[in-house]
Amino acid sequence: MTDTHPLPPGSTIGILGGGQLGRMLALAAARLGMKTHIFCPDPQSPAFEVTPHKTVAAYDDEAALAAFADAVDVITYEFENVPAATAAFLATRKPLRPGANALAISQDRLAEKAFLTGANIAVTPYRAVTSLADLEEALVELGTPAVLKTTRMGYDGKGQRLIRERAEAESAFAALAPKPLVLEAFVPFEKEISVVVARNSHGDARAFDPAENVHRDHILHTSTVPASIAEATATEAVWVAEEIVEKLGYVGLLGVEFFVLPSGRLLVNEIAPRVHNSGHWTEAVCVTDQFEQHIRAVLNWPLGDPSRLADVVMENLIGDEVHGVIGQLGPGVAPHLYGKAEARPGRKMGHINRVAVKTTRK
Amino acid sequence: MTDTHPLPPGSTIGILGGGQLGRMLALAAARLGMKTHIFCPDPQSPAFEVTPHKTVAAYDDEAALAAFADAVDVITYEFENVPAATAAFLATRKPLRPGANALAISQDRLAEKAFLTGANIAVTPYRAVTSLADLEEALVELGTPAVLKTTRMGYDGKGQRLIRERAEAESAFAALAPKPLVLEAFVPFEKEISVVVARNSHGDARAFDPAENVHRDHILHTSTVPASIAEATATEAVWVAEEIVEKLGYVGLLGVEFFVLPSGRLLVNEIAPRVHNSGHWTEAVCVTDQFEQHIRAVLNWPLGDPSRLADVVMENLIGDEVHGVIGQLGPGVAPHLYGKAEARPGRKMGHINRVAVKTTRK
Repeated sequence: MTDTHPLPPGSTIGILGGGQLGRMLALAAARLGMKTHIFCPDPQSPAFEVTPHKTVAAYDDEAALAAFADAVDVITYEFENVPAATAAFLATRKPLRPGANALAISQDRLAEKAFLTGANIAVTPYRAVTSLADLEEALVELGTPAVLKTTRMGYDGKGQRLIRERAEAESAFAALAPKPLVLEAFVPFEKEISVVVARNSHGDARAFDPAENVHRDHILHTSTVPASIAEATATEAVWVAEEIVEKLGYVGLLGVEFFVLPSGRLLVNEIAPRVHNSGHWTEAVCVTDQFEQHIRAVLNWPLGDPSRLADVVMENLIGDEVHGVIGQLGPGVAPHLYGKAEARPGRKMGHINRVAVKTTRK
Repeated sequence: MTDTHPLPPGSTIGILGGGQLGRMLALAAARLGMKTHIFCPDPQSPAFEVTPHKTVAAYDDEAALAAFADAVDVITYEFENVPAATAAFLATRKPLRPGANALAISQDRLAEKAFLTGANIAVTPYRAVTSLADLEEALVELGTPAVLKTTRMGYDGKGQRLIRERAEAESAFAALAPKPLVLEAFVPFEKEISVVVARNSHGDARAFDPAENVHRDHILHTSTVPASIAEATATEAVWVAEEIVEKLGYVGLLGVEFFVLPSGRLLVNEIAPRVHNSGHWTEAVCVTDQFEQHIRAVLNWPLGDPSRLADVVMENLIGDEVHGVIGQLGPGVAPHLYGKAEARPGRKMGHINRVAVKTTRK
């Protein structure tokens, strides 16, 4: 039976992961009068700066996990690669939201695609690959170019190889094997959009407006809202996102990335059971932002109002880009920096939201 | 010479006072990638829950103050009653923003009124009172009713007595003496408004839209924006607020409370050298809110954009009212709870902002 009792102000939320997402979740929890306890192996975690309660330990340290579970009222996480054993261990002690099921599905590209396909949701054509023979057969079926990916632990372009022609199959396979792999057809999409959607334990689901995403070097560069897509495409994206959280019996916020085809049709590229980089725009222009929305769901609170008060472009600050932030603080600019000490190349250091008077849609 | 060098992300801001204002300042500082260190004598301070860096000590504990100053890059405060000796001690060690001058003026109702009058800014008619004879003479001059107040340490209606007729002079004087007192004429105002305004070390000043305030039991109940006042009155209020920070050479955010007379003319009731309860609406609907604006000024950063994206009513949650908050979370509602353990009568426990589509003014 699902526990739907709202946790009162003053409760402690345990957060696995101490990066910027955990940090922003902790800030949102504080605005609701909650305490937070961050669990992260990295002693330099930026989220450690926004709460006095932390555990620095490995995710398989059962003594540390047990003490953490004892210290909190509910547990959530900032990243989908929480080890299954960690999730299972914690879930027997305190409510884990979102649940282990969503975690298991989103950790494995094949499981995710199978789930979506089973829910009659269109995804990029794909084939499982466990041998070079599998790969060669899959390339015949899906054609080239195609993208070979590890089924697990890939993010920001890591763990994948573009195969332009069949002759590249062997080197691509050698680079990624012996991990389980998946070949995905190369989809001639027009743009990428995403929807962040929340569902609580009462079964209420609410989505934010779709964002149009542009990547640079495989890392999200900008999210623009409203997306320049047809109204019907926007409606369909929200519908699909709500369908996914409903089918998962999900509690929390989830990001859904879509490819928009020239016809306006949508394919789901990926889902992430957590607050999402492409939802950072919500903090600048929505009544309730994605971080508070996730926390509300985790607390069994009523979901907040995702209404958008203005148009916005979110831009990530990667590596050295953060050093120029003070010079960019013109009218309409809302910055958010993550407090990371070292601006390494490719590292997400912060973002800025450029807010403009609302022009279109809802 | 004024130091105008911007402090970089990763700097530590020391905050005197660990109440809800200190807590909200710390949350805003975190969004700019800053660390915070809270100094407060109360071990249960709500602000201690949003940073790992704290000092629990008395404001006259020089060893603790010295260590605190060593640990931070700049110092600010959440309340105007920082002892002058504390401010002076700290200011020799690290930049104190706003400066000791603004503190000294706003700590003393007489000094404040003398400053404002000297700047040609209209205030409520008043007389200094150090004896019963003073009081009786002042009552002749200002008439009844009138309000007798201590010159120092008054807030939320504490430290004052309403004198309805001259016969009440002796009992009112006895209740408040031997503290230095001030008698203020009772002004037949139509409404109360306030403006929060920031100025940075470069001399830039920016005000938020005026809010219309309603008090209940001497405690702020609601702030409504836009205020239902004439455009000319709103413009005048902003002008006066900017004039005050300019004349003070102020660095930080300051709240200015006004009485609006039936003619539309304004009298300044009080100024507060800190973020202000009547500015809590800014967090829900402005590009930059009052907390970030104060932190930016304290850091010598460019000031943010105070533009307002929607209409809003801020409502304080006092004492037990906080227990009903989950039931009030309808469309347009943005809650903020302060994480205080005990809901004592009269205690500010949180606030909610009710956001509505923008209707009027700017």
